[in-house]
Amino acid sequence: MTRTPVRCIALSLLSLLAAAVAAEEGMWTFDNPPARQLKDKHGFEPTKQWLDRVRQASVRFMDGGSGAFVSQDGLVISNHHVGLGCIQNVSSAEHDYVKNGFYAETRAKEAACPGYEINVLVGIEDVSGRVLGAVTPRMSDQEAREARKTAITKIENDCNAASGLRCNVVKLYQGGEFHLYRYKKYTDVRLVFAPEQEIAFFGGDPDNFTFPRHDVDICLVRAYEDGRPAKPQSYLPFSATGVADGDLVFVSGNPGSTSRLYTQAQLELVRDVELPLSLEFVKRRLSVLREYSARGSEQARRAKAQVFNFENSQKALEGRLRALVDAKAMAAKAAEEKELRARVAGDAELKAVSGGAWATIEAAQKKAASRAAEEFLVSFAGSRLLQIAGQIVRYTAEVKKPNEQRLEEYIDSNLEILQNRLFSPAPLYDDLEEATLVSQLGAAVEKLGRSHPFVRAVLGEAGPAEVAKAAIAGTKLKDAAARRALVEGGPAAVAASTDSMIVLARRIDPLAREVRKFFEDEVEAPVTRAGEKVAQARFKVYGRTIPPDATFTLRLSYGTVAGFPAEGTTVPPFTTFHGMLDRSIAHAGKYPWALPPRWQEKKAGLKLETPLNFTSTNDIIGGNSGSPVIDRKGEFVGVVFDGNIQTLAWDYFFTDEQARCVSVDARGIAEALRGVYGADALVRELTTR
Amino acid sequence: MTRTPVRCIALSLLSLLAAAVAAEEGMWTFDNPPARQLKDKHGFEPTKQWLDRVRQASVRFMDGGSGAFVSQDGLVISNHHVGLGCIQNVSSAEHDYVKNGFYAETRAKEAACPGYEINVLVGIEDVSGRVLGAVTPRMSDQEAREARKTAITKIENDCNAASGLRCNVVKLYQGGEFHLYRYKKYTDVRLVFAPEQEIAFFGGDPDNFTFPRHDVDICLVRAYEDGRPAKPQSYLPFSATGVADGDLVFVSGNPGSTSRLYTQAQLELVRDVELPLSLEFVKRRLSVLREYSARGSEQARRAKAQVFNFENSQKALEGRLRALVDAKAMAAKAAEEKELRARVAGDAELKAVSGGAWATIEAAQKKAASRAAEEFLVSFAGSRLLQIAGQIVRYTAEVKKPNEQRLEEYIDSNLEILQNRLFSPAPLYDDLEEATLVSQLGAAVEKLGRSHPFVRAVLGEAGPAEVAKAAIAGTKLKDAAARRALVEGGPAAVAASTDSMIVLARRIDPLAREVRKFFEDEVEAPVTRAGEKVAQARFKVYGRTIPPDATFTLRLSYGTVAGFPAEGTTVPPFTTFHGMLDRSIAHAGKYPWALPPRWQEKKAGLKLETPLNFTSTNDIIGGNSGSPVIDRKGEFVGVVFDGNIQTLAWDYFFTDEQARCVSVDARGIAEALRGVYGADALVRELTTR
Repeated sequence: MTRTPVRCIALSLLSLLAAAVAAEEGMWTFDNPPARQLKDKHGFEPTKQWLDRVRQASVRFMDGGSGAFVSQDGLVISNHHVGLGCIQNVSSAEHDYVKNGFYAETRAKEAACPGYEINVLVGIEDVSGRVLGAVTPRMSDQEAREARKTAITKIENDCNAASGLRCNVVKLYQGGEFHLYRYKKYTDVRLVFAPEQEIAFFGGDPDNFTFPRHDVDICLVRAYEDGRPAKPQSYLPFSATGVADGDLVFVSGNPGSTSRLYTQAQLELVRDVELPLSLEFVKRRLSVLREYSARGSEQARRAKAQVFNFENSQKALEGRLRALVDAKAMAAKAAEEKELRARVAGDAELKAVSGGAWATIEAAQKKAASRAAEEFLVSFAGSRLLQIAGQIVRYTAEVKKPNEQRLEEYIDSNLEILQNRLFSPAPLYDDLEEATLVSQLGAAVEKLGRSHPFVRAVLGEAGPAEVAKAAIAGTKLKDAAARRALVEGGPAAVAASTDSMIVLARRIDPLAREVRKFFEDEVEAPVTRAGEKVAQARFKVYGRTIPPDATFTLRLSYGTVAGFPAEGTTVPPFTTFHGMLDRSIAHAGKYPWALPPRWQEKKAGLKLETPLNFTSTNDIIGGNSGSPVIDRKGEFVGVVFDGNIQTLAWDYFFTDEQARCVSVDARGIAEALRGVYGADALVRELTTR
Repeated sequence: MTRTPVRCIALSLLSLLAAAVAAEEGMWTFDNPPARQLKDKHGFEPTKQWLDRVRQASVRFMDGGSGAFVSQDGLVISNHHVGLGCIQNVSSAEHDYVKNGFYAETRAKEAACPGYEINVLVGIEDVSGRVLGAVTPRMSDQEAREARKTAITKIENDCNAASGLRCNVVKLYQGGEFHLYRYKKYTDVRLVFAPEQEIAFFGGDPDNFTFPRHDVDICLVRAYEDGRPAKPQSYLPFSATGVADGDLVFVSGNPGSTSRLYTQAQLELVRDVELPLSLEFVKRRLSVLREYSARGSEQARRAKAQVFNFENSQKALEGRLRALVDAKAMAAKAAEEKELRARVAGDAELKAVSGGAWATIEAAQKKAASRAAEEFLVSFAGSRLLQIAGQIVRYTAEVKKPNEQRLEEYIDSNLEILQNRLFSPAPLYDDLEEATLVSQLGAAVEKLGRSHPFVRAVLGEAGPAEVAKAAIAGTKLKDAAARRALVEGGPAAVAASTDSMIVLARRIDPLAREVRKFFEDEVEAPVTRAGEKVAQARFKVYGRTIPPDATFTLRLSYGTVAGFPAEGTTVPPFTTFHGMLDRSIAHAGKYPWALPPRWQEKKAGLKLETPLNFTSTNDIIGGNSGSPVIDRKGEFVGVVFDGNIQTLAWDYFFTDEQARCVSVDARGIAEALRGVYGADALVRELTTR
């Protein structure tokens, strides 16, 4: 499962609409938990105290992923793949903690994770009146968007000024409601424990998105405040008993985005244009990264995180495509839409407001299709250095504007995290940068043609290899101080710069802005407005007892521990360490099913029958990685790290026929910490109540 | 995997044609092994001695299934589900060897398997000239069939009279060739060892036709001659090393039947009529058997073998249906046919002989469809007692006729096995007989209607329950002596009998003969002839370097030990005892993943890392159950017991994308015998060279 970045324009562009209804579906906000369903189906009535505790113990990793406080001393559990960036950054050619694992036996040895920020949701306030009140019926789509943006920015700034908290206005129900989410933030985050990646990601890309699974995909970090371990308001103690088949379980985390109210026209664009194009680019990038990795073990180490991310993306995109070519599911979606449209057509008031929305969306999809390749290619993508250069060019220009006129990622409330990433000392590698940039520019030539303005501006008469080599040779941006100097020098410094990457970024910027503006004005704005109308019609017809689409904010989903039918048999909901050994032996101990030396040595002392991974019917999506799985008592029973391949359909519709959330079992975590790592102190901290 | 009965008219009716070409495809006859492919692909050149040894060690179980001699003292290994009938027959209400397993620690304790016959192929002779020479071009289809039958019967009788061996003429290549197969037979077969069915069939029906798998699906019987352990000409010693991923392996066994040269019209009849109808009847029977089993544990024991067979059938039928609704595969078959037909149309000589064959087959399929339900229902099916009564009625009538005019199953060469089954003392249960007969008669009413001659003849004005109850109450046929008296009394005794089942059978007989004659004359005869013409065209166009369709005679298939891709990952080719424990724990130790008490107690002493089951690309089909898997050295490395769900396509076409043969690993067998059963004497016998 892939982490969901905070900003992912290409993917979120079409993610403007909302959730369809289904049986156990639901990523519920904490101010509107599914109390009735829980009582009716499971005889469970969560108290306010239960909900508050779970919320206060749940955390969000600002650059993607979820987690939970699991001790009173600020210990946070999440996934290895959520903490991977940190583990890599504290590694070096001498100490490869990704390969060998990391364990700080004392607090003094806990290692700072630069750029990591952890958020805890402390308040939700309905500000719909203030946001929606800023829009009048006579405004154009663009005017309405600007008016909303202005209102939102003011609310966020006022909140931040008053409280010092991270304040975000979240659009729910496709703009039917706007809620102000206030977060306490922790920016001093330190790595405590990570297993070897071979064990965290046992089975590698082949087993990713599958079950049975045998991964210890965890890492433990500690939040610090004022140089001391943080004291969270709540934490989730490890359950002493664990879960059994059929148990009610909750997932509390931050699902990134879903698209469950897409119209047929939108689904078709995704199926026929967006996904095939994305797949093409991902495959191209992977082939370059594999070539690069083959040059040597140090190169393989450098490229590992990117390879991992792109392999994951490929499987995810393929899974989504499979969901959308499923004739049965698509017929169900079509029937849903047909019914809703019939109900709208049969009600004069609804028809007046929403009757034209579907046609508007369809027209916008056609426009999107016409420039889809440009959306991917006319950008700073292909090299991290080019991306940084692009961010510097835009940052210096944007911050001079009034907040409400800026590109969204440069508004005040986003600047801090942007700076953290922009000035991160995370290492960059010239040869890797060059390989990926050559590939990206090659794709542009191929898909857009030599005469396209972007290709002309970037390449002139030269070839991708020549341009990429020169750009990387002539930049100082690997040095964080050089970046800082340009940012501090402002537009004048950027305009005067002869740094090769800055020069390239200056040429790309206006072209990329034009493409972006086209998509914002011609696609996003009308689709947003029309999508809201579809949503409004839907609420009037079917009521409001549904959860909003995912928005990378805290949600509670409920489900049961359950296996699933596959390949003519039943896949049971648990695996054990026996299964891990079986699978490793069956693959003759070969990568990615190899056991690291420490595991080879210690396995005889493990209680092999201990549950290791389990499946449940909880509704999750990218961004839920690292979410705690919680039992009725509010105790920690596992940590979400994946969904099986069938959950990829959950972007568009929820089904629990086969789709399952996949978690590391708390019992397996404790057994591994004890039996393999001798981390008895950690186990004590995790099991203390 | 289901055992293939010697006679299975409903299924074999459409199985008249031949094999399509594919990469590693091939169930090769021992007189035409794939020498070139083996040398080119695997650098292996089997000697005549190697082939003779393998052939002499391979055995066929006359009532379905394969096996191999694995010691010089006549010990034969096969599957638990091949020996199940014997294990059941030696069981009683007091001693349930199916549940508890069976192990004869001394030879004196080895238990006779009534009705079991084991065959070893000792000679193959091409008799095509004699069989084909009996047919002249002017003969009608029916005349040609009779002429062939007469010639075949004479060859078989002459051979039997001269040698005392079992002699069968086998039609190969759709009648392109006829070979005389001579078999040494062993009729004194005794049970030596069987594990608990829970372990032989671990995972039960859910895991059947799947992999990963964890079954010790074996039984060991011993062939006796003159009251002493037989001394086979050859046997396969257990390999000391076992196999590894990628190893070349052979399967030597008796595949029942395949239909790989079906025309589109035939495939469509199977897909649209035969399979849906078969599935309907199988589901109906299963629902009755489950109801019956729910009455008590003794009832469950009585019905177990039938439930097992029908559950297997259901999954197999569903798998076949899935293969035939696979648009891609069907398109490939259609393209194959199109190409062949185009080649035929373009060659005057071929066109004259074969040009009309496809249309003939298509017309016959339409006739078959029109009476498909009658083929299933106008029969002695539904009760073993009724089946016995039907066999007695027919036996006494048929044996009075010249051999060549009899129904095929009553010709001299088949009488012995028929008598063995007819006079078998295997127990029958009134309540079970009644339940299944009521269901069968109910189906007839429903599908054929009250006015159909069969329904009128059997039920008159009464209901199915009334008729079935009376028929079972009024019969003495449970007593084997009563059966023998009727057979010995001949047609007069049968005609005079007032035994209720005989009365019923006498009424059914003429109606069933009429349906059978319709299918033989109107479907089978023209399809056979036309199928031969298609086959002849195919040979002329593509050459004769292909193996014939399966015919429940000895075949050699080669392949490699290999995993397969499924659900987005790679399923490795091996499982271990670790995997068995993992799966049992994951299912909370519940049926059918429970471990029997002996296993619970002994598992700690097992080498859990020992390979238990493995997959390979060998081309197999029902009837191969119990076939030995053999390495280059000619040693025993495993015993075939299943194919994964994708192998069900192999009835119609071979593909090794995912389809895999599934075997019990010799190492797992030895480890279980040693570690769980303390059968050290057996292990010594199996590993002695």
